[in-house]
Amino acid sequence: MKSDDKSYHTRTPGWKHAFGKKLENILGKGGVVSAGDELIAYDADALTGTRIIPMFVVLPESAAQVSAVLGLCYEEEVPFVPRGAGTGLSGGALPTEEGVVISLSRMNRILEVDIANERVVVEPGVVNINVTKAVSPYGYYYAPDPSSQVVCTIGGNVAENSGGVHCLKYGVTTNHVLGLEVVLPGGEIIETGGKTLDRPGYDLTGLVVGSEGLLGIVTKVVLRIVRKPETVKTFLAAFGRIEDAGAAVSGITARGVIPAGLEIMDNLCIRSVEEAVHAGYPVDAGSILLVELDGPAAGVEAEMPIVEDVLRENNATLIKMARDAKERDLFWKGRKNAFPAMGRVSSHYYVQDGVIPRSRLAEVLGKVEELSREYGLRVANVFHAGDGNLHPLVLYSAANEGEPERAHELAGKILRACVDAGGSITGEHGVGNDKKVYMGEMFAESDLDAMNVVRCSFDPKGLSNPGKVFPTPRTCVEQGAKPYTEHPLQKAGMGEMF
Amino acid sequence: MKSDDKSYHTRTPGWKHAFGKKLENILGKGGVVSAGDELIAYDADALTGTRIIPMFVVLPESAAQVSAVLGLCYEEEVPFVPRGAGTGLSGGALPTEEGVVISLSRMNRILEVDIANERVVVEPGVVNINVTKAVSPYGYYYAPDPSSQVVCTIGGNVAENSGGVHCLKYGVTTNHVLGLEVVLPGGEIIETGGKTLDRPGYDLTGLVVGSEGLLGIVTKVVLRIVRKPETVKTFLAAFGRIEDAGAAVSGITARGVIPAGLEIMDNLCIRSVEEAVHAGYPVDAGSILLVELDGPAAGVEAEMPIVEDVLRENNATLIKMARDAKERDLFWKGRKNAFPAMGRVSSHYYVQDGVIPRSRLAEVLGKVEELSREYGLRVANVFHAGDGNLHPLVLYSAANEGEPERAHELAGKILRACVDAGGSITGEHGVGNDKKVYMGEMFAESDLDAMNVVRCSFDPKGLSNPGKVFPTPRTCVEQGAKPYTEHPLQKAGMGEMF
Repeated sequence: MKSDDKSYHTRTPGWKHAFGKKLENILGKGGVVSAGDELIAYDADALTGTRIIPMFVVLPESAAQVSAVLGLCYEEEVPFVPRGAGTGLSGGALPTEEGVVISLSRMNRILEVDIANERVVVEPGVVNINVTKAVSPYGYYYAPDPSSQVVCTIGGNVAENSGGVHCLKYGVTTNHVLGLEVVLPGGEIIETGGKTLDRPGYDLTGLVVGSEGLLGIVTKVVLRIVRKPETVKTFLAAFGRIEDAGAAVSGITARGVIPAGLEIMDNLCIRSVEEAVHAGYPVDAGSILLVELDGPAAGVEAEMPIVEDVLRENNATLIKMARDAKERDLFWKGRKNAFPAMGRVSSHYYVQDGVIPRSRLAEVLGKVEELSREYGLRVANVFHAGDGNLHPLVLYSAANEGEPERAHELAGKILRACVDAGGSITGEHGVGNDKKVYMGEMFAESDLDAMNVVRCSFDPKGLSNPGKVFPTPRTCVEQGAKPYTEHPLQKAGMGEMF
Repeated sequence: MKSDDKSYHTRTPGWKHAFGKKLENILGKGGVVSAGDELIAYDADALTGTRIIPMFVVLPESAAQVSAVLGLCYEEEVPFVPRGAGTGLSGGALPTEEGVVISLSRMNRILEVDIANERVVVEPGVVNINVTKAVSPYGYYYAPDPSSQVVCTIGGNVAENSGGVHCLKYGVTTNHVLGLEVVLPGGEIIETGGKTLDRPGYDLTGLVVGSEGLLGIVTKVVLRIVRKPETVKTFLAAFGRIEDAGAAVSGITARGVIPAGLEIMDNLCIRSVEEAVHAGYPVDAGSILLVELDGPAAGVEAEMPIVEDVLRENNATLIKMARDAKERDLFWKGRKNAFPAMGRVSSHYYVQDGVIPRSRLAEVLGKVEELSREYGLRVANVFHAGDGNLHPLVLYSAANEGEPERAHELAGKILRACVDAGGSITGEHGVGNDKKVYMGEMFAESDLDAMNVVRCSFDPKGLSNPGKVFPTPRTCVEQGAKPYTEHPLQKAGMGEMF
């Protein structure tokens, strides 16, 4: 952040203390973290390669407080980084050294449950699973279910456009967010979308979902909820070769069945998961495939023999159906803990998140295996097979010199293989700090320019989560933006309360 | 268009002729329409209240030609209006008098059919139904089905984010568009999204879908196709009171059944449709409800008795199931021709497109009836009941003095009733020229500012479909935009080819 460095260096010695006082005026003493040992807790998200201690962390309790903080940051040219639960895997919540982290953890109220219209309105700090808990008594649930759903928050899900193991059938976060309240850089509060579908004007809701905190801070979210299916049936199938599991996935969808979830894990993954959570996975299998069917009972019952046929045709060595909800939860617990379970077999791992066209699965998996051999590093594979969303886990030890760098290089080559196959460098984890270097391989300069034009129109000073997503710093002056003080979204007198 | 008026008035007498020559240099003689009697064909879309003859119509055959035309328009500050099939109902393709209409009708090639990955790539002029025709032999179809689907084009569908009678279950256009090639005002060609889901960076694809031609011209579209369902069953149910039909809709969804389509028509609508297309509707019914179930045979069979029960519980006086595909098509033919059929009972009609939360249906219908009595004008009701998307048709005669104005006033009050009920002024027809006056009632100034900031970042001169969507002209100078020549998306030498 060039502009920030500059302003920092010209700041007076007492500036930081005075700025902290202004934050306290807005948030109260208890709403500002400034002690070094407390700030450490905010130095990274779940991508831990880089750690940066921020200048301050603030804990606002309302959109008005967020607005006041962003107004102050604008005036004083201080960058800010929004933070949910810190479970992100792309470094999207990595602080900037001379910036403020805005933790939304205290804005965790469910504001409205409207069952008749199938809507829930929440603050961004609400934990994903708590939305489902709130509507479960009425027979509803919130569909997007990232593996971290017992911890991660809706605000973070909105920033990253999170998916989950059921997004094949039910879609990702953007398919379930209908409206937002957003505080723009500068402090202006806007509303986008609403409770009804497909509102007029530009789809700013869709623009903000997945924008990784670069367009401002979301302070309210209107969510769509869906009815719990009448019946859920979950199969666990084992295969000798992972290619057979992949062929079974194609076979199931080719027969017109759209499962709620379709997940593949390879042997390395199976073994570490089984050791960690005892999910009942066959540890000697080359790969396993989880298939979940849901819907009206009669429909699911009709689909079950189709799925079993396809599994058998593709040489499944074991087909097990979860006997009850308890066993089903256990099957999924294994899958949802695949990342942390890796800690059992390797001191360090690096998760990637590539997407490929479903038809190129076998080819890309072959390439991953080849790269793994070439680099002498193990790669565990777990993926949302129905969407072609791969999560290769590159295992390494930081104690071995050069290994972290080699692991990153290998992971990068896997992403390139995904792009070469017509795919993408991220399916659901976001670009963040981690994958921005690959953006130039997916997008032409003109495409990135078009994105930057949008960024600059909301954030001409580049203060909102700077240094993320874009591969090279693009200033807004080049983009033709006026200084913010001449910007119509800057309301006169924003600084009067300080 | 203030700026345009100004430049027009300062233009030399020979300017228009010279400009036409430059267009011909780009497109060839056959690609430019300039004769008065030919231009008349482009003076409006399906909203016929206002008619404006444009200066020129151009018929490009490639993105390169579109790019060259937009570059020229930028240099000479000439506004342009993109046009698909002209079936829009909000005046979104209404020309500007001193502008160019860009008809995409010649860009009508299907570029790629990729069944393995369930994608089709098309040019914008491809007729909606032709996508389905291209993939039908493989067991697939393109889901969004506006009533005009045998005529309307994908480019127009993208501009308006069109829905259809099956969008309850399958979503609207934005849920089926994965990537775009867009020519920005100034001529820059960008690509957004791609064949894989949920790509990184801002969701510019989602931003452009539904932007009503205000961000540039779409020249290529990547579509998602879906498998044809194994079974389709369609019910026609008649009711005495329209409220009972509404209650049946709530009852069906409350039982966990999500039909592919749920459509209500009132008596006035039924009678005119029946006279026009002989769909087999009961002409004495107060209202009818069409319910379509689709999916695996066993699932549909399980849902059928549930739907029948709910229909009976809500006092259905007739329940008829389509015997075969032919009768089903006839049921839908009636619904899809509801608008044109109105011509049988009224010399003129004005279609509205409000959305309300499903739970407020009875209340808003009561309000519509009250307004109809107050204004002494008949209102026919047809709506996507599952989505709460109403299409009231206000009937009037232009021969009666003041009646067109009264019809518009009445229609406006219906939209206000929708907004008051927590709804929206458009579900699928767009804002266009027709409904921009209501935008201020749905959005705060700050929300509209945020939209305009986006518009100006793509189109600082305001040349792309000007005068649409925004209630009051907002210039981009206020918005802090630099002249386009300093804009990074403006490529030097754009005018060199002329």
